Amino acid sequence: MTMNLLEIFFSELFGTAILILLGTGVVANVVLKGTKGNAGGTLMVNFGWGIGVFAGVYVAFKSGAHLNPAVTIGVAINNSLNGNGEFVAGVGINAGSIALYIVAQLLGAIIGAVLCWVAYKQHFDAEPIAANKLGVFSTGPAIRNYAWNVVTEVIATFVLVFVIILFANTPSQLGPLAVALLVVGIGASLGGPTGYAINPARDLGPRIAHAFLPIKGKGSSDWAYSWVPVVGPILGGVLAALIAPIVAVWVK
Amino acid sequence: MTMNLLEIFFSELFGTAILILLGTGVVANVVLKGTKGNAGGTLMVNFGWGIGVFAGVYVAFKSGAHLNPAVTIGVAINNSLNGNGEFVAGVGINAGSIALYIVAQLLGAIIGAVLCWVAYKQHFDAEPIAANKLGVFSTGPAIRNYAWNVVTEVIATFVLVFVIILFANTPSQLGPLAVALLVVGIGASLGGPTGYAINPARDLGPRIAHAFLPIKGKGSSDWAYSWVPVVGPILGGVLAALIAPIVAVWVK
Amino acid sequence: MTMNLLEIFFSELFGTAILILLGTGVVANVVLKGTKGNAGGTLMVNFGWGIGVFAGVYVAFKSGAHLNPAVTIGVAINNSLNGNGEFVAGVGINAGSIALYIVAQLLGAIIGAVLCWVAYKQHFDAEPIAANKLGVFSTGPAIRNYAWNVVTEVIATFVLVFVIILFANTPSQLGPLAVALLVVGIGASLGGPTGYAINPARDLGPRIAHAFLPIKGKGSSDWAYSWVPVVGPILGGVLAALIAPIVAVWVK
Amino acid sequence: MTMNLLEIFFSELFGTAILILLGTGVVANVVLKGTKGNAGGTLMVNFGWGIGVFAGVYVAFKSGAHLNPAVTIGVAINNSLNGNGEFVAGVGINAGSIALYIVAQLLGAIIGAVLCWVAYKQHFDAEPIAANKLGVFSTGPAIRNYAWNVVTEVIATFVLVFVIILFANTPSQLGPLAVALLVVGIGASLGGPTGYAINPARDLGPRIAHAFLPIKGKGSSDWAYSWVPVVGPILGGVLAALIAPIVAVWVK
Repeated sequence: MTMNLLEIFFSELFGTAILILLGTGVVANVVLKGTKGNAGGTLMVNFGWGIGVFAGVYVAFKSGAHLNPAVTIGVAINNSLNGNGEFVAGVGINAGSIALYIVAQLLGAIIGAVLCWVAYKQHFDAEPIAANKLGVFSTGPAIRNYAWNVVTEVIATFVLVFVIILFANTPSQLGPLAVALLVVGIGASLGGPTGYAINPARDLGPRIAHAFLPIKGKGSSDWAYSWVPVVGPILGGVLAALIAPIVAVWVK
Repeated sequence: MTMNLLEIFFSELFGTAILILLGTGVVANVVLKGTKGNAGGTLMVNFGWGIGVFAGVYVAFKSGAHLNPAVTIGVAINNSLNGNGEFVAGVGINAGSIALYIVAQLLGAIIGAVLCWVAYKQHFDAEPIAANKLGVFSTGPAIRNYAWNVVTEVIATFVLVFVIILFANTPSQLGPLAVALLVVGIGASLGGPTGYAINPARDLGPRIAHAFLPIKGKGSSDWAYSWVPVVGPILGGVLAALIAPIVAVWVK
Repeated sequence: MTMNLLEIFFSELFGTAILILLGTGVVANVVLKGTKGNAGGTLMVNFGWGIGVFAGVYVAFKSGAHLNPAVTIGVAINNSLNGNGEFVAGVGINAGSIALYIVAQLLGAIIGAVLCWVAYKQHFDAEPIAANKLGVFSTGPAIRNYAWNVVTEVIATFVLVFVIILFANTPSQLGPLAVALLVVGIGASLGGPTGYAINPARDLGPRIAHAFLPIKGKGSSDWAYSWVPVVGPILGGVLAALIAPIVAVWVK
Repeated sequence: MTMNLLEIFFSELFGTAILILLGTGVVANVVLKGTKGNAGGTLMVNFGWGIGVFAGVYVAFKSGAHLNPAVTIGVAINNSLNGNGEFVAGVGINAGSIALYIVAQLLGAIIGAVLCWVAYKQHFDAEPIAANKLGVFSTGPAIRNYAWNVVTEVIATFVLVFVIILFANTPSQLGPLAVALLVVGIGASLGGPTGYAINPARDLGPRIAHAFLPIKGKGSSDWAYSWVPVVGPILGGVLAALIAPIVAVWVK
């Protein structure tokens, strides 16, 4: 069975939309005024994002469920190093297909963020603090320092892409659950300084939605920071793809 | 092996009863006065409902474990679109079998809620606030606005039914666990505004139980809101069944 | 491959010891003075017990991992109803083998509780409140009323044994994980009134250990309550075994 | 397919580095000043370490994923008792291979701790309390008493290695998840007195990193305690390997 580009497009778009809807949704639940999950805690946020990935992976299973440009780029490099020229059967790795994955992910992320805003519309209206509203959509640094913030995102995304690539070398069949738990763990362990974007689409898509949506009293979209959760994760993904063969080839 | 209607009936009834007993139970534990789980937090409530679904799915495995009229209707539409005329082997999809599933689910939900009341009888008696007692049985909005409350339930149930339908397109064998985690995630991420009924039987069944049980100082059953967690989830389930083929057929 | 009675004995003894060590340990961590997990919350306690069961099931896998007299009695009744005269290959169901399972479970529970006391020795010494020390070992009611306390234990244990029996009718291979999650859920959902003994050995074994161990300032072992978490779970297990065939036989 | 020693070395090194990065990372997130996960709670710490093990096991799958000298020694003894002279195909059990595993684990642990410090650099700088900084790297006792602290580590590591050895006797395929949950449970249940090192490399590696890294205001590395989380876990692992055959051989 081979896939075509349109199938890839919708698969990544729907998968990323579900991921971002659940991911931004849990932040809305914990942060916005008057919700039932207010003050639900960091671990609940981690589980919301992890299960968002879990659901998104099922939805986008047949396109490989990248849901993340850093994963797409990492997989592209890793497959090329392995002499595997396809993302999935019938879809070759090239500038066009990489762009298709990324555009679908970005559009999906925007759609997911819009749906989150609709689902929590009344609580966005009730919330008095603009920064909390942006915080539902996009990440921001606990201590703003672009260089160190990039470093943290590089390390966290390295772990994500590195372990995902190595999943393929094990006989375990826990696919979606394994990625979900990994994201819960990265959030708990490496989310402290920057809120773990670890995915350019996850951050940029909702930030675009924040910019164009008519959110009451929304304040700045903080575009000054917006390049950090794009550049950091891409660097981390590239690094993971380059280093993974050290372990992966040997353990094949 | 084929199933008959009586088997379907008891399967859905017992499964839904276990789901609702564990689901309403965790709310009772967190909310009612003097329990050991008081102030256990939102994530604990999410896990209680998720594991309630998990246990219910095992109990009702052979009838397909819908446990939810929105799932029954969504599956009926989706199977019809796929040209599959049966819920399970031997049980055709028609008005009669749909009604049977739903009646069994509603009766099971009532039984589960009654058992929860029995298990927490002393804490219902000790609890001074009537709204907390109703909150164990049925959902209510954080900010009452019927239109937006319906919208939130539509979105949350769409995610539930959409992802469940797409589970069938993946090779994963995590069935009951996958649904359970999905419910944990929907609760954490989309439960903030309305308490995620996402299941007409889950809300209406316990509300009926609340109305007829001799609960000390029970107050209103809030029938004015009762249609929201029926209409919203059904709309969400229908929508999911109509949209899922966009992804599902292509990825088959 | 058949089992003999000595193998059964050690399997259940070691499995129950691990279960009780981890289960009582998490309570010690949350309750006793000066530990690192103080005030860790109800959900952490639920996970500690759930993972205790998880580990215990692996240890006692080949004897069927009952770890609980209510399960042993429930399985004995259920297997007899199904015309299956053995617990596991080579071990017939009779008064002698039932007694062997239960004695092994009780001894294992005592050993687990002793090890917990050893692991937390300094914190038992530092803890000023006698009731907290007993609370590590055994359950007690939030509101003392023997009749209602028995009812709660009957319902909670019914869910445990009912769902475990029905696991066998599903193709899922999540065995130990499924039981673990079920115990997490029962704890979260039905543990509020009595602390979910749902296992006579889990309560009586550690209570015996509490009675004979030289615990500094330990206070009463509350023998007046001790029959409740024995009688309630056994009734619940028997009820589950009698009712399960309604669903189980039909769905076979 | 056989492995060679260089493959073993990198497999254990990378796996342990990922484990320690995620494990020390979650402590940094909860403990250090100004992070987003501050006051995330004990259960979040337990999950961070558990998922650290989960990720590490995938990375080091083909070397057996010991990631822990106590496991290496336990497996060496257990395999020898079973007449199995290899760790994995092609790698015999002898002083040289045991040393190789342990050196790789220790180096990996140092690397993981260094990466954690880099990821949280700004929060290490902002944190005023030296003990909190050391607490990210290494364990310390809640109540300092070397004898009892050793006893607690012996018991906790016994559970770890004992259950891991017995996993091999069950048909479950949950490998990495099972170990992860076990570590969550041991942390929740037996981590109260000493912070559950249960792994000499986990404690000694980061302590060495703490000693040589230029951490601002870092204070003492508490070398006086450093032998406890080395000796206790090794004793626990040896004990588990000696006792496991009582159950394991019989249940084979």
